[in-house]
Amino acid sequence: MQNDSAVTTMRDFHAWFTAYGEAHQSKVRRIPFTELKGWRFERPTGDLVHDSGRFFSVRGLRVHNPTSPVSDWDQPVIDQAEVGLLGILVKKFDGVPHCLMQAKMEPGNCNRIQLSPTVQATRSNYTRVHGGRPVPYLDYFRNASRHRVLADVLQSEQGSWFYRKRNRNIVVETAENVEPLDGFHWLSVGQLHALLASDDLVNMDTRTVMSCLPFARDVSSPALRRPSGDRGSLYPVEGETFLSALARSLDPRHGTMHSFGSVHSWFTNARAEFRGRATPTDLNSLRGWHRTAERISHESGLFFDVMAVDVRTGSREIGGWTQPMIEARGQGVTAFLVQRIDGVLHALVQVKHEPGFMDAVELAPTVQCTPENYTVLPAEAAPPFLHEVLSAPAEAIRFDTVLSEEGGRFFHTRSRYMIVEVPPGRELREPDSFRWLSAHQLSRFVQHSNYLNIQARSLLACLHSLLCQIRGVRT
Amino acid sequence: MQNDSAVTTMRDFHAWFTAYGEAHQSKVRRIPFTELKGWRFERPTGDLVHDSGRFFSVRGLRVHNPTSPVSDWDQPVIDQAEVGLLGILVKKFDGVPHCLMQAKMEPGNCNRIQLSPTVQATRSNYTRVHGGRPVPYLDYFRNASRHRVLADVLQSEQGSWFYRKRNRNIVVETAENVEPLDGFHWLSVGQLHALLASDDLVNMDTRTVMSCLPFARDVSSPALRRPSGDRGSLYPVEGETFLSALARSLDPRHGTMHSFGSVHSWFTNARAEFRGRATPTDLNSLRGWHRTAERISHESGLFFDVMAVDVRTGSREIGGWTQPMIEARGQGVTAFLVQRIDGVLHALVQVKHEPGFMDAVELAPTVQCTPENYTVLPAEAAPPFLHEVLSAPAEAIRFDTVLSEEGGRFFHTRSRYMIVEVPPGRELREPDSFRWLSAHQLSRFVQHSNYLNIQARSLLACLHSLLCQIRGVRT
Repeated sequence: MQNDSAVTTMRDFHAWFTAYGEAHQSKVRRIPFTELKGWRFERPTGDLVHDSGRFFSVRGLRVHNPTSPVSDWDQPVIDQAEVGLLGILVKKFDGVPHCLMQAKMEPGNCNRIQLSPTVQATRSNYTRVHGGRPVPYLDYFRNASRHRVLADVLQSEQGSWFYRKRNRNIVVETAENVEPLDGFHWLSVGQLHALLASDDLVNMDTRTVMSCLPFARDVSSPALRRPSGDRGSLYPVEGETFLSALARSLDPRHGTMHSFGSVHSWFTNARAEFRGRATPTDLNSLRGWHRTAERISHESGLFFDVMAVDVRTGSREIGGWTQPMIEARGQGVTAFLVQRIDGVLHALVQVKHEPGFMDAVELAPTVQCTPENYTVLPAEAAPPFLHEVLSAPAEAIRFDTVLSEEGGRFFHTRSRYMIVEVPPGRELREPDSFRWLSAHQLSRFVQHSNYLNIQARSLLACLHSLLCQIRGVRT
Repeated sequence: MQNDSAVTTMRDFHAWFTAYGEAHQSKVRRIPFTELKGWRFERPTGDLVHDSGRFFSVRGLRVHNPTSPVSDWDQPVIDQAEVGLLGILVKKFDGVPHCLMQAKMEPGNCNRIQLSPTVQATRSNYTRVHGGRPVPYLDYFRNASRHRVLADVLQSEQGSWFYRKRNRNIVVETAENVEPLDGFHWLSVGQLHALLASDDLVNMDTRTVMSCLPFARDVSSPALRRPSGDRGSLYPVEGETFLSALARSLDPRHGTMHSFGSVHSWFTNARAEFRGRATPTDLNSLRGWHRTAERISHESGLFFDVMAVDVRTGSREIGGWTQPMIEARGQGVTAFLVQRIDGVLHALVQVKHEPGFMDAVELAPTVQCTPENYTVLPAEAAPPFLHEVLSAPAEAIRFDTVLSEEGGRFFHTRSRYMIVEVPPGRELREPDSFRWLSAHQLSRFVQHSNYLNIQARSLLACLHSLLCQIRGVRT
């Protein structure tokens, strides 16, 4: 394996990860709401809140979105005002940057343990509202200026399920000696990329932090230079292959279909002209939603449920707890259509409103939906490009992995992440709310808040990961 | 006049502006609230609203800001959810970019008419809720993609007086023939900069749009190239003068005290850690505020009043109207301390919370306050650096002009805008919430929403304007 890490081989990683899972058993069980401890339905609102007033609550949202096939609806939403921290600690070994990754149990994970950032903590966690143990490695991020900060930006989470939730995505490189604690492991960026191709392994929080890594903006960045110290491009940009088109797409010196300024103006226009609104309301007052002993569901049986779990584990800050969660009814499809345009790979993004966004619209993947939710609507309500993605021939599918949404809030909620290539030369469709962007244009947006939604950021990380095929890292 | 415009001399501009004011008389009169037409105090909230439900309303805000000398207070606030449009149309004459500027009467202007952008309109204006005339030149901005977009970004307004108000700041360059209508005039960017030194002439909306102009990011930008077509720097960057340090400050090739990444991380940290909140509430429920027939005032006699005016004019879309306004009690001080650091001019900015911001904090000038508001507080509550600014010797004062806040909402509300140089070599203070930034770092932030507050943007335009001294434009 040409570029496998000298610190940890992939074989060693898999052995460690499997052994860790076996040694740290846990049990997650659905429970009726009455078995929740410390949580209650507040009167008269019916909002599901924690006795401490912290963590999060489940409230209602009344949505008006004139750009949606259904323009008005009510829904439950998670209200979590505090900014969480998602931090990856980086350190070079033999000149190769490695990330300190954590094998973390989350109750919503269908396979219990996934790979998470060095620190993945809400403010309630790390200020220890629940009286748990201190969060390891936290100080590297809370006092980041003592180290080298590679990325540090607030990013949104799912605007369909969270109300104005944001996390601080931060990557810090240290020169200090760092001892991996039990449950932590060093992996190179190339190894992390390779692991993205495994179903339900690299968790959502890792994916969003990876998308903020600066390497796409400067492929010769010192943080990602090859061990030899070669300052040149890491990737072969010659030739007419898919991968050379992707390598060019990551390099700002290559051309793009639209200038960054014109894309920014298109985005500003969409945000300024958006006429929808989302108004927080009582959970009791939602139209079309009903609460039973065990779940809050929509009368159609679609969308998602609010439910509750009991968790028993030895691998978290405290040994057991109960909590509400959101459980999606169907599996999502999250896809980029990509195409080589003048030899540079472009991805098709859309401006999309989600009711929980702080600011009207963000940039989303070409397709982001749960197909089942459209079964009750007329055929013309189907999301644009969904058919094109699902009917693509095998050779056009460049990435196809089922990945989990955040296991701390979402129960067995997964989406099929796909990158599908449109054959070069086939006519480009670009509806008003869509634009073809290069990877480095996406990476330029991701340096700032409120541009790329979390699904687009996950796919951006997946797009980068395809380059590891060049670099010879295999699982 | 070495660089005066061939299209309009400054002498011609002043003659035109004076004549325009004389030909377009208007009368603004304070009125009791009962004389407002189409506005009423809604029951039971007491909110001051328009019968159409549009324009804006005056509501209440309950504020908690642990970083302020007074941590909790109530206040009225203007609630104007719609995004306004501030657009400057640019066209080159003999290769020199000129801006189409408007002599515009606003009821709050102490001198009635000031210089405003080509288009300065709320959505209610340009969709003609009040049945007025169409907004001239609007199509250049609503269909901007047919032209060359030089800047297009949503920016905040005063977070102390507006709740989450934003405007779209847009600069469009056209190659079409554009006939200036009555009240419009072409001015070069250099002339506009020179006019910034006149009290109460260049209005707030012009200043914020000017701050978004791309010239600071690329002084050899085609839009700002000299008529000769010379691609080199416009400014002498040699020598040890203040102006050469300013010219270097605008050029990203010169060094800065802090890297952009570390400043961005400092800002992200401040935003993530901010613990304050602002909750909309009824105007009737505000503690410490009292309504008389003519005004809503704070019991201390400080801060600002809500009052009402009757406007009679021939120079606006409709001949007359009444409206509520905000009238500040004291004159503000808005200042940058600047210092040459390794030959590059830096300005001292602070992260500041204002209750109406969409997102916790933005970057504000070194000093931004109304000194009278601190007279009732202990001396140690005085804003940092206020004394340094107000006691600066004459030779340290690089800019000192009284400028008006937006005359459509603020009545005779003005601030002294200052740029004060700290002697080179004097020890730099940099408290936790302050950072020294170069002009091009400020210009990089201003390309995106929610970084620079409106006062910092005004001062950034003033800082740029000092370069016109080099270019020989005089009023």
